Amino acid sequence: MKVGFVGLGQMGSAMAANLIKAGHEVTVWNRSPDKTAALAEQGATMAQRPVDAAQGDVVMTMLADDRAVEAVVFGDGGIGQGSALHIGHSTISVALADRLAGSSGPGGYVSAPVFGRPPAAAAGKLFVVAAGESAAIDRGEPLFTAIGQRLFRVGDRPASANLVKLSGNFMIMAAVEAMAEAMTLAEKGGVDRRTLLEVLTGTLFNAPIHQTYGEILVEDRFRPAGFTAPLGLKDMTLADAAATAYGAPMPLLGIVRDHLRSVIATEGEDIDWAGVALAVRRGASV
Amino acid sequence: MKVGFVGLGQMGSAMAANLIKAGHEVTVWNRSPDKTAALAEQGATMAQRPVDAAQGDVVMTMLADDRAVEAVVFGDGGIGQGSALHIGHSTISVALADRLAGSSGPGGYVSAPVFGRPPAAAAGKLFVVAAGESAAIDRGEPLFTAIGQRLFRVGDRPASANLVKLSGNFMIMAAVEAMAEAMTLAEKGGVDRRTLLEVLTGTLFNAPIHQTYGEILVEDRFRPAGFTAPLGLKDMTLADAAATAYGAPMPLLGIVRDHLRSVIATEGEDIDWAGVALAVRRGASV
Amino acid sequence: MKVGFVGLGQMGSAMAANLIKAGHEVTVWNRSPDKTAALAEQGATMAQRPVDAAQGDVVMTMLADDRAVEAVVFGDGGIGQGSALHIGHSTISVALADRLAGSSGPGGYVSAPVFGRPPAAAAGKLFVVAAGESAAIDRGEPLFTAIGQRLFRVGDRPASANLVKLSGNFMIMAAVEAMAEAMTLAEKGGVDRRTLLEVLTGTLFNAPIHQTYGEILVEDRFRPAGFTAPLGLKDMTLADAAATAYGAPMPLLGIVRDHLRSVIATEGEDIDWAGVALAVRRGASV
Amino acid sequence: MKVGFVGLGQMGSAMAANLIKAGHEVTVWNRSPDKTAALAEQGATMAQRPVDAAQGDVVMTMLADDRAVEAVVFGDGGIGQGSALHIGHSTISVALADRLAGSSGPGGYVSAPVFGRPPAAAAGKLFVVAAGESAAIDRGEPLFTAIGQRLFRVGDRPASANLVKLSGNFMIMAAVEAMAEAMTLAEKGGVDRRTLLEVLTGTLFNAPIHQTYGEILVEDRFRPAGFTAPLGLKDMTLADAAATAYGAPMPLLGIVRDHLRSVIATEGEDIDWAGVALAVRRGASV
Repeated sequence: MKVGFVGLGQMGSAMAANLIKAGHEVTVWNRSPDKTAALAEQGATMAQRPVDAAQGDVVMTMLADDRAVEAVVFGDGGIGQGSALHIGHSTISVALADRLAGSSGPGGYVSAPVFGRPPAAAAGKLFVVAAGESAAIDRGEPLFTAIGQRLFRVGDRPASANLVKLSGNFMIMAAVEAMAEAMTLAEKGGVDRRTLLEVLTGTLFNAPIHQTYGEILVEDRFRPAGFTAPLGLKDMTLADAAATAYGAPMPLLGIVRDHLRSVIATEGEDIDWAGVALAVRRGASV
Repeated sequence: MKVGFVGLGQMGSAMAANLIKAGHEVTVWNRSPDKTAALAEQGATMAQRPVDAAQGDVVMTMLADDRAVEAVVFGDGGIGQGSALHIGHSTISVALADRLAGSSGPGGYVSAPVFGRPPAAAAGKLFVVAAGESAAIDRGEPLFTAIGQRLFRVGDRPASANLVKLSGNFMIMAAVEAMAEAMTLAEKGGVDRRTLLEVLTGTLFNAPIHQTYGEILVEDRFRPAGFTAPLGLKDMTLADAAATAYGAPMPLLGIVRDHLRSVIATEGEDIDWAGVALAVRRGASV
Repeated sequence: MKVGFVGLGQMGSAMAANLIKAGHEVTVWNRSPDKTAALAEQGATMAQRPVDAAQGDVVMTMLADDRAVEAVVFGDGGIGQGSALHIGHSTISVALADRLAGSSGPGGYVSAPVFGRPPAAAAGKLFVVAAGESAAIDRGEPLFTAIGQRLFRVGDRPASANLVKLSGNFMIMAAVEAMAEAMTLAEKGGVDRRTLLEVLTGTLFNAPIHQTYGEILVEDRFRPAGFTAPLGLKDMTLADAAATAYGAPMPLLGIVRDHLRSVIATEGEDIDWAGVALAVRRGASV
Repeated sequence: MKVGFVGLGQMGSAMAANLIKAGHEVTVWNRSPDKTAALAEQGATMAQRPVDAAQGDVVMTMLADDRAVEAVVFGDGGIGQGSALHIGHSTISVALADRLAGSSGPGGYVSAPVFGRPPAAAAGKLFVVAAGESAAIDRGEPLFTAIGQRLFRVGDRPASANLVKLSGNFMIMAAVEAMAEAMTLAEKGGVDRRTLLEVLTGTLFNAPIHQTYGEILVEDRFRPAGFTAPLGLKDMTLADAAATAYGAPMPLLGIVRDHLRSVIATEGEDIDWAGVALAVRRGASV
């Protein structure tokens, strides 16, 4: 397929590379053009403007936030002026997803945020959560296969996929908060964190979320960040906006947002979002 | 071994039966003597007073709360007057575990709370979390093997096992709260609960806690209760007392306690503790 | 003075009328022109465009939210193109206040949000909280005297006044939440709300906030709303955005936002913001 | 009247002294007898056992906690064996008040907790909140007049007064928490605490609670403590027990309990309960 890819951060570069490997004809664009060089070496064409990447079958976007997506889609020379199906992988607000769906060009719009960190992106092992018209998702499926290990279809309205993605990220933060509180209680009561984690992961709590983040908490591996606290706070704020829009009280979301604010204030912006555990410990003077 | 077993509720009866099956010589006592009949048929000896069950190698207790344990141990004819090693399986306060450790008789005391519901107890598949003197735990090991699938040793101080047990129950409630908030947000935003759960359990959240309780939440299976909300609130209040004693702020614990109070107030005392989800939904007018 | 007034809702109309009464030469503009008629009868000049109200000494704005202010200031024919000192009374975000300060025209910009409901506005008894250049506030002082009973100067940076206003509104919601929780506890324990309120206002809690809102809670006077829950949620969300921007955890703010969401979901958009008490009671099944 | 007074801490000593001044015949008892000397000089009789202070018309108790009251009432030589009307001023649990009411001797029992700090006690300016049989409260009224500035009658069931007292203390902590969050937000946004407090106390928040505690927060006067954080946590835990018993979710109570735990953990046991503000600031890295 002829595919455009806009947004070549760590995630986007890895995803675009996997599309090339899978034999697709890929055109790339990035705000800072230096990031396109490596992909050009792998066979990608470099576009001058986002819209130049949106003239084929599909254009994918993987950007940092709402503002970046708005600029790339609605700006001058934006992909909104192209004819390709737009598949949005970015973690954006539900409101922007609705706007993208409502104002998409002839190609249509699918939201397809992903779960997974850069190593999973490099390995083509992302989880893809897609929503939009069924036929449009079908057209994207060969591409999802190239970048991910599994596709979930969650509805006709693109924003549904974004809502699921935000819910999933909230679930991650909630699990980290729970482990942080339990470990802090245990530690103050004389049981070390590793001992508690072994019981938890040896019984009911043996999911990747517990194993991965449990180890981070036990070993204090908060730097370098796999996903920074400010990015986590951005996502939790998007979830909060959805909660306001839909009228859903979410007290646990309120706690993790407070702890993200706290850890950024005390530790700086380079801390991992699992650093909410540091806010919990600090409150207990651990 | 000569083993006494005190407390023949659903859990205790199943545990005592497995001890008999494993070839141990079991003497049982229960406050309401009618429960002892079934075990007597299986070969158990019936004791007149708790202390009569505490003259062998080991006496195990599996009771509802601190008050019941205090009555059976410190009361007239209590096991505190016996010579057996006391292994306490009940979910009790950290403070009472410390008191039991400090005042145990010549046999000593081990705390060994368990994770698992009645079917797991019947199948001998409990998880046993033990703390106390190493040699004492060793003596109990053949018995733990008869009732459980795995033994975790978490320290020399018996109360450590109770702290771990309370932390684990807190983790269960925290996971239910997180799923309930995420599902309510999703539902109000147009994504049904099952769709969200499939994505969660298909990605990072595939532990038994998510599968078991996720299904309960999706299918509204809150009655009959596997574990009632009042019992859950009792345990969360024990965790809260430990948090006060050790100086550990636990905002997430505060939330689940409030939601347990709420669901008991609105639904009655027979609701499952996973009914915290109903408190979450009610707040959102779902 | 020659004064423009933009935004003639309940509050704005009353404020503009007081300026006329005080002898100022007032030009008014409102999005729906029908609201200007009454003021024209009192002697105001009707402007065609916002900028036409911004050619005198001062132009005041009193609008519903950030969006309305942005439209009136930065839009075509907006007051940003005038020469008058802009005094903004609206409850807007700290971020927008910073933007207004940074992009103000030759006349300069002062933020001067007010405390008080429509009756206080009609009586010229508002509290005015102003921030900006000292000389600019001095210029506005005769106008503040016409609309308010007292002026507070809170700094050189206009956004400081908005931060104080949002903090004040948060304090109101916090007091309502506290009274609601205490009254619900008391009521479930057999002490009626009025009895509790009498003790509170008879001892340490005799401020207008307790008297006014205490009565509302005791008598269930949630409709018609003095200030609706959606407007309250808007303000609390602005406070939340400031908390994120400045890195301040605010768990109590999280609670009141959740309860506002809840009461809007269950009661509808016309409920008073003191209706958070209904969310509290509902959780307790009162 | 012939009055016994049991419990001669700072509060109790001042209250007993005022009873003597008012012309009553006072017999005192205290666990550490050294505290009785000063009152003996003022004319009090020293009792050997609590029951010796409970043979007149009324015996008043003012003790630290449930345990102290239980010891003095139900213990050997306790006032439960006397014939006087027992008026309990201590801040105790609702459950213990119910027990005292149910097991009181021929004299009956009235709960009459007080609001006010030691200087108010010394000046006879306490607020007295009484509940119990109307005739019994009538009998106590001359004594309440000697120690307090105002009497509130809140019902027939003694525990109602304790519930009101706990609710009032919760309201104090809630107001401190609200001011602490608002001041921290303001401060991080560039508005100093005093400036914010002036606006608050100059508008809707001019109650003694705001003035007294507002100054403490602005000036960091957390030591020496007027009322220590551990005592505050004790009271909030009693409120929490009532909330559990009556089925009232109280999220704001959860927050202040967490912040009390936090400030005790970080600052030690001698900090004032208004030190919850330090927990708030610490979370914001102020």
